[in-house]
Amino acid sequence: MKYKVITISREYGSGGREIGRLVADRLGIDFYDWELVSRTAAESGMSEEKVKEFEESYSLLPFYDPMEPRETFSVEDRTYLTQCKVIRDMADKGPCVIVGRAAEHVLEGRDNVLTTFVYSDRERRINRVAAALNTTALEADRKISKMDRQRSHYYHHYTGNTWGDPPNYHVMLNSGLLGIEGAADAIVRITQNTG
Amino acid sequence: MKYKVITISREYGSGGREIGRLVADRLGIDFYDWELVSRTAAESGMSEEKVKEFEESYSLLPFYDPMEPRETFSVEDRTYLTQCKVIRDMADKGPCVIVGRAAEHVLEGRDNVLTTFVYSDRERRINRVAAALNTTALEADRKISKMDRQRSHYYHHYTGNTWGDPPNYHVMLNSGLLGIEGAADAIVRITQNTG
Repeated sequence: MKYKVITISREYGSGGREIGRLVADRLGIDFYDWELVSRTAAESGMSEEKVKEFEESYSLLPFYDPMEPRETFSVEDRTYLTQCKVIRDMADKGPCVIVGRAAEHVLEGRDNVLTTFVYSDRERRINRVAAALNTTALEADRKISKMDRQRSHYYHHYTGNTWGDPPNYHVMLNSGLLGIEGAADAIVRITQNTG
Repeated sequence: MKYKVITISREYGSGGREIGRLVADRLGIDFYDWELVSRTAAESGMSEEKVKEFEESYSLLPFYDPMEPRETFSVEDRTYLTQCKVIRDMADKGPCVIVGRAAEHVLEGRDNVLTTFVYSDRERRINRVAAALNTTALEADRKISKMDRQRSHYYHHYTGNTWGDPPNYHVMLNSGLLGIEGAADAIVRITQNTG
């Protein structure tokens, strides 16, 4: 296959992680989502909870360029650098699907990486989240706004780019229209591109 | 195949029309682009030039809802209604690729239609347009802005939606990263989805 690594960025509630899991299963390759957190924790000597917490606390930080040398690094930024290393190691190791963590940016410039973004209409996302969290539509709606905001801030802080902006990705898939299976199937087929 | 009709909206200079042609060739189905203009002209009794001219003159008009009854129609709006009929006839006739003309909106609600949007980075688009029109990068850049603006206005006028906005499409493809062949291949493969 032409693309060895598939990155999946996704709107909260769009089913992106489930799609990533299906793609990895169908292609028989590794799937990294939570494992990214545990490996980053292991490499940095922190707890998984702490790593998760950092991922959710970027809202107020300005854009940070990891290429720019500096005297001191915040714990968040050191965690991010460790995570970048973990992502690169995973991509070096062999074919895999990596969900989230601005992986498409970390792996930028590698020509065997297919970068995707999964999105969906608000109504389907609300239904999905409400069912998954066993909560009301209103609560689900709030949670979606909060999570999207977090991902957007995280992405901008570390990449300087806009989360969900088309130029960042090879392909953007509407899981609401394609369905979860349909979106996974589309990615599998594109990956098998031999052109 | 699951999807019988493929609509392709595209940024000017992204190679969307060429991609549509390749997809139609590979699938052995009909391809409609300019033919849409000539059929609309034939059905409305106008010249092809006049139809083309109307397509380029929507910039200043407010959103027009074809479902809303009204006493009088402008020539532009009557031409649009004729074009809608031509597009529906094409989709009824058999599998095909339709480029542009907000076809995804005209065919909304049909479940055998795959709606796509092709985009690319500005630099590649400028190079493509400059080569095709044998002009300077500056001229190509201006032409791209003008054409995108026209398409955007046309789209908004007749659909009330934002041109290039992800929710309007099943899949959005970056022809700059995928390549023209790669983007065509991706659409062909998704179309053959049997899920």
